Amino acid sequence: MSKKNNKILVVGSVAYDSVETHAGKRVDALGGSASYFALAASYFSTPTVVAVIGKDFEQTHIEFFESRNVDLSGLQIKSGSTFRWVGKYDPNNLNYRETIDTQLNVFAEFKPILNEEHKSINVFFLANIQPDLQMEVLNQAGKKPGIVAMDSMNLWIENNKADLLKLIPKTDILFLDETELRQLTGVKNLIDASKTIIDLGPRIVVIKKGEHGLLMNSINADHSFSLFACPALPVDPVIDPTGAGDSFAGGFMGHLASLGKTISEISVEDLRKAAVYGTIMGSFTVQGFSIEQLKLVSIKDIEKRYNEFVNLTTIS
Amino acid sequence: MSKKNNKILVVGSVAYDSVETHAGKRVDALGGSASYFALAASYFSTPTVVAVIGKDFEQTHIEFFESRNVDLSGLQIKSGSTFRWVGKYDPNNLNYRETIDTQLNVFAEFKPILNEEHKSINVFFLANIQPDLQMEVLNQAGKKPGIVAMDSMNLWIENNKADLLKLIPKTDILFLDETELRQLTGVKNLIDASKTIIDLGPRIVVIKKGEHGLLMNSINADHSFSLFACPALPVDPVIDPTGAGDSFAGGFMGHLASLGKTISEISVEDLRKAAVYGTIMGSFTVQGFSIEQLKLVSIKDIEKRYNEFVNLTTIS
Repeated sequence: MSKKNNKILVVGSVAYDSVETHAGKRVDALGGSASYFALAASYFSTPTVVAVIGKDFEQTHIEFFESRNVDLSGLQIKSGSTFRWVGKYDPNNLNYRETIDTQLNVFAEFKPILNEEHKSINVFFLANIQPDLQMEVLNQAGKKPGIVAMDSMNLWIENNKADLLKLIPKTDILFLDETELRQLTGVKNLIDASKTIIDLGPRIVVIKKGEHGLLMNSINADHSFSLFACPALPVDPVIDPTGAGDSFAGGFMGHLASLGKTISEISVEDLRKAAVYGTIMGSFTVQGFSIEQLKLVSIKDIEKRYNEFVNLTTIS
Repeated sequence: MSKKNNKILVVGSVAYDSVETHAGKRVDALGGSASYFALAASYFSTPTVVAVIGKDFEQTHIEFFESRNVDLSGLQIKSGSTFRWVGKYDPNNLNYRETIDTQLNVFAEFKPILNEEHKSINVFFLANIQPDLQMEVLNQAGKKPGIVAMDSMNLWIENNKADLLKLIPKTDILFLDETELRQLTGVKNLIDASKTIIDLGPRIVVIKKGEHGLLMNSINADHSFSLFACPALPVDPVIDPTGAGDSFAGGFMGHLASLGKTISEISVEDLRKAAVYGTIMGSFTVQGFSIEQLKLVSIKDIEKRYNEFVNLTTIS
């Protein structure tokens, strides 16, 4: 792993989260899909954040992102409050959480705006926001960026499925968890479901399974499929799973962006390494509330954990 | 993989199962932990079955086992009916099943009896039966067999925990699923829970996670730990999960037995290969009802799937 200055653009949310888990709680801690993604990706490449914050957003958080070489030229500051989410995890099972409150605030009127420099970026990540906003970003980009990846969630699959089905063919990589993928495709078997997505256009489907790792399917130039399965990296203790999926995507896409390749140049090996880097960035995130742990790691820590992961999973 | 004629003894159940899944149903099909274990292990080594059947047990099933070189000298035939289990899986989720009926029949009075040849076998597998019967087998063996592995379940952890805690120190390898391990140890984190077991005596803990693969922890000669995680092999369609865990153990222990090593000679690499062979034997079992699929496979099929598994999981 060597950090390149290749750029990657993320559109998503920057938020203040109030979260309670068995391990404690935090009030108004830095959160949002774009925050986790950008910080995780910043270890591999140079992220540009397209998002909106309110007047109440703390200057220290602006300075923090800038100190990590995150480009905030796409971050709009609007009068009003920053997006807020309040959630509580089941103290006995971190797979279950309850959303106690969501205040969209300035996010309710969010319209992403890309400048010319943004439009020239080769790798785009459309984090989990309304599909019409994700589409708006691609429309503004004009010609398709070299690599487009997207995430989504049950809410949009339920309420905006038609929009999603228009968007997905314009992307190269789809990230979903197993429940979302089944919900979107109506196909129970995950491999079959991934092929249903690949039939729509994307070359790569990454199925996130949380503590159980991931399954990734991709189509090769000769139309064969390459399937990859890997476990999560067990960490102890898990403090707060919030942001793990976005950190995973940040490590995954940050690594791909660092390669400076086009989508058709990306090899199965590149994708597998990306999946492991993603797994590792997610594993750091869950070890603390908010970005508390993720922000502390060094490139050396990432490499150390990469080697631990290889050691954990290598058969012989 | 080369099949050696090294012996392995299994004590467990030989049963007739009536099972219903989304894919159909079977009535009085060959089942039981010792049946699955012995058939899976027979591809790697020579199993001896210590179990009990009733007068109704079909001669064709006796002949089937004999055709696979399974030694039935420890199989007692008693007047009465063979153990019967009736179960139904949730058509939408194979992780949930309901036991509709259990008829212990001849199994209610089962007392394992080992002859001198049985006692000389180097590798023992105590399948999931009452802990006092598992202990009886070890007592009859006299000096500790070279490698002793055991399985158990929630029923015995709830009702016979003291017996289990006397038995576990006499074993080298414990197989449990994640729920059972947490229940037995009272420890939530699986790695910590595995160390709690290793403190009791076993060197190796294999945590079965079903469709999510496995986690294995083992202690090395220098008192460090080796952790291994691997996914399951995705198969499509899954027909019936009954017997997957016993087939897994059969492949795992069958491979270990084929090496002809003592427990202290077994390397981390040996264990990881065993885990993969186990995974593969489980993957065949779930592709059919009863042993319908497992009995059809050849050593070549196993090697092919082993290579597929390596390909599925290798990072680079």
